[in-house]
Amino acid sequence: MKQEHHTPAQIERASMEIIQRELEERGICLPEENAHVIRRVIHTTADFEYVENLYFSPSAVGRAMETLKTGTVIVTDTNMAKAGVSKAALKRLGGEVFCFMAEPEVTEEARKQGSTRAAAAMELAGVRYPKAVFAVGNAPTALLRLCELMEEGLRPALVIGVPVGFVNVVESKERLVETCRKYHIPVITAMGRKGGSNVAAAICNALLYQAAELIQPEKRGW
Amino acid sequence: MKQEHHTPAQIERASMEIIQRELEERGICLPEENAHVIRRVIHTTADFEYVENLYFSPSAVGRAMETLKTGTVIVTDTNMAKAGVSKAALKRLGGEVFCFMAEPEVTEEARKQGSTRAAAAMELAGVRYPKAVFAVGNAPTALLRLCELMEEGLRPALVIGVPVGFVNVVESKERLVETCRKYHIPVITAMGRKGGSNVAAAICNALLYQAAELIQPEKRGW
Repeated sequence: MKQEHHTPAQIERASMEIIQRELEERGICLPEENAHVIRRVIHTTADFEYVENLYFSPSAVGRAMETLKTGTVIVTDTNMAKAGVSKAALKRLGGEVFCFMAEPEVTEEARKQGSTRAAAAMELAGVRYPKAVFAVGNAPTALLRLCELMEEGLRPALVIGVPVGFVNVVESKERLVETCRKYHIPVITAMGRKGGSNVAAAICNALLYQAAELIQPEKRGW
Repeated sequence: MKQEHHTPAQIERASMEIIQRELEERGICLPEENAHVIRRVIHTTADFEYVENLYFSPSAVGRAMETLKTGTVIVTDTNMAKAGVSKAALKRLGGEVFCFMAEPEVTEEARKQGSTRAAAAMELAGVRYPKAVFAVGNAPTALLRLCELMEEGLRPALVIGVPVGFVNVVESKERLVETCRKYHIPVITAMGRKGGSNVAAAICNALLYQAAELIQPEKRGW
């Protein structure tokens, strides 16, 4: 065991170096704009498949930077993803993160409509924070409802659509890309089955750190 | 898109059927005792590599069942893993979940010892809930401190050790297996680099659902 890596910042820096080295060994050169997000997702999952899975619409990261620098709201579809978003980075940028899954009116609305709480939570978020960054890491039903809301006029600052699973997941991501392309909405997704609340939070954090110009762990104050 | 899958329970049942079918197509027959945990981790990650990665000490699941049925405390190393553990299942069994990462005394203790908050959080948990289920999904430093505490006499009901990453992770899991073997402590881990807070929560939930005899989604009241 290498005893020189002690603090979380040192461990993170060493991890990122290993990831970069292994990418180079595989002959992979990441596009510069998206490199931080891709490396952070690999850091979170130890899964190099995300090099191929992750899809970014043109200038998605650049546009996300502009938004997040102004202290934008992030809405997640699970409390797990919300828990994973860096509160320190949000605080520094003046942003906030919300998840409406546990709101009583979401449960009530889902029951009334015969939909899922995840879908109803997106609706509520669309009303309260229509220009937020929406990060969906779990429920394809949330992503599909978000696509409908965009068809109806919702214009989020960015959609991070990385639900994981075996039913409706692949299709929901394809529809997301198509919908966002149609309305020129920035989107980051992981094509295929993979994703998750951890991946959604990792993408948010990569963007937040970058927006805070705190890409290098040693520069961070937390 | 298959429109017949509407509710989360239906989607989950369909997902588990797909997972089981694909396992059979690959000629994989899961050991019965561990099958629910393995399938739920695949469900959470869409990653079949966990079939090979997951390690269970003999009778770990059976012994976890006995403990969780009595309403045991679960301690996690991240608030993200804590957020992912099913509160409904815990409530049904009379259990609780805690994460001490954000406690002021943990920050203070980590500073004093020059260790990580994750390691200090395990220490505090070891004092408050020495017979808990410990679920570590993020920090190898937490797992290594837990190993030291077991050397010093701590006897958790079960250790779920699935940190993810590139530095000290593989080694921390090897030490965990060795330590638990020495002291006959039940352990579930994912050998290699993979794991995460989502995987830690998925293993907890698989065990909780099974302990509550709520393995089949259609039988669940939530």
